[in-house]
Amino acid sequence: MSQIERVAIVGGNHGNELTGIHLVKRFQQYPNLINRASFETLALLGNLKAIEEGKRYIDKDLNRCFTNQGLQNPQLSSYEDMRAKAIQQILQPQNQPFVDVIVDLHSTTANMGLSLIFCDMHPFLLRLGAYLSSINPMVKVFVNQQSREGGFLRSLCELGFVIEVGAVAQNILNAELFQKTEQLIYAILDYFEGCNQGNIPQINSTLTLYQYIETIDYPRSNHQEIQAMIHPQLQFRDYEPLNPGDPMFLSFEGKDILYEGTSTVYPIFINEAAYYEKGIAMYLSQKQQQVV
Amino acid sequence: MSQIERVAIVGGNHGNELTGIHLVKRFQQYPNLINRASFETLALLGNLKAIEEGKRYIDKDLNRCFTNQGLQNPQLSSYEDMRAKAIQQILQPQNQPFVDVIVDLHSTTANMGLSLIFCDMHPFLLRLGAYLSSINPMVKVFVNQQSREGGFLRSLCELGFVIEVGAVAQNILNAELFQKTEQLIYAILDYFEGCNQGNIPQINSTLTLYQYIETIDYPRSNHQEIQAMIHPQLQFRDYEPLNPGDPMFLSFEGKDILYEGTSTVYPIFINEAAYYEKGIAMYLSQKQQQVV
Repeated sequence: MSQIERVAIVGGNHGNELTGIHLVKRFQQYPNLINRASFETLALLGNLKAIEEGKRYIDKDLNRCFTNQGLQNPQLSSYEDMRAKAIQQILQPQNQPFVDVIVDLHSTTANMGLSLIFCDMHPFLLRLGAYLSSINPMVKVFVNQQSREGGFLRSLCELGFVIEVGAVAQNILNAELFQKTEQLIYAILDYFEGCNQGNIPQINSTLTLYQYIETIDYPRSNHQEIQAMIHPQLQFRDYEPLNPGDPMFLSFEGKDILYEGTSTVYPIFINEAAYYEKGIAMYLSQKQQQVV
Repeated sequence: MSQIERVAIVGGNHGNELTGIHLVKRFQQYPNLINRASFETLALLGNLKAIEEGKRYIDKDLNRCFTNQGLQNPQLSSYEDMRAKAIQQILQPQNQPFVDVIVDLHSTTANMGLSLIFCDMHPFLLRLGAYLSSINPMVKVFVNQQSREGGFLRSLCELGFVIEVGAVAQNILNAELFQKTEQLIYAILDYFEGCNQGNIPQINSTLTLYQYIETIDYPRSNHQEIQAMIHPQLQFRDYEPLNPGDPMFLSFEGKDILYEGTSTVYPIFINEAAYYEKGIAMYLSQKQQQVV
């Protein structure tokens, strides 16, 4: 692993996720909070117009616009397509990597605690995850290898990842989660500084991680109207085991709808507000121990 | 008190408050759930276009458009101004009262439990509040006499009031709160049925209620940017006492900002997402016992 020379911290990739937005504004005001002796850190706001309007996005989800195809297509002219190209120019001028790490700050109405989301099993990221989860049990690691091609901002960079904090409603700040996210960012930056200095913090040799299995939608009518809600016994139970026969949804009539799989899974992103329109009630994941 | 002949239940006055929207859709599908022997009940969706788009409103807050002035002004042509006039036509055709009661269903990111919000101390509403809070301790009664002139839908009717449920994020359903709200509505309708039949349910002779005192905004910069968050010790503590010297806000730098009043108050609507733009961090109320 070569030295980390530049880190980008992005907030407001979605305009209604205030935690990242206000952290980035704070870092822009006090850059010393995020610079370290051996590298510099860039703090950047994502979807400027959506932040202004307090919406997730204006025309389309910015965090699905970072595909090679989209970024190279001069025909695409929606606000988010243009903004994705502008952000790429900042993070990859002349298509050359300029930053070594992208930390993309998100929040969610699901009870995700402090989640790190990786696109792959990069050994450096896995060691980072093992370190962070060893110092703070609220830190969880979710790996979604299918997301490499999804047009996510984090895919602009080999060491790109998401911090997803929750549960917090859209368009509000939760002070406790704000401060925990801020501390997590400092721990990450200090870890990079340690690596650059040859002082890699001692870590557990295994990491508990959650691997993406599949996406579950809400039960819907022929007109695509949802017909059930997340079951009260599952609400806010992200990263907890869901066993065959456990209740998953509750219909508006009050009927339980059970999980019919054949093995224990670990649901995450349960009841994320922005995912109703995407047909996602939750992701199912499997829990595994990974030697790092 | 004369007979109640017609009740209106409105959901989606704000398009991103899903609890009321899906309850009203359910009542429209199964009218028997809300009709009673001695009266009929109308279930109505409020801001149709905002519901479609999952937003609070399109151009302006529909639930501030029901002023006499606005309703009588043919110049006003925003979507919400038009929709307010259309709703008035349904609830007050030829400006005559058509419904005796309006129940306006809302949800909030504040931890309001099951709150009833009244514009005044109408004895019938106070007895209703006393009855409902006696059968369910989650029921709280908030009286905001200043709101009579605010252009609220509930002001179309002498017996108009709001049910405000939370904490729930915008654009999600919380099954537990959905079912509790549904049960509360049935208890209200059954109470009206009892009154019509001369069987008024026995109630406590006193009611605990919370009276509006004042509105508190977030600390803001000269550019109106917020500079602090709701303090973690206050978050989700709606209807609990706030004493002089108790922490109220936490600045982004981590400094406590204390409540500097001289007497104990009861904050409500703490950290409601839609109120950031309105300059409302919370309302302060005083708690009182009212003989009914």
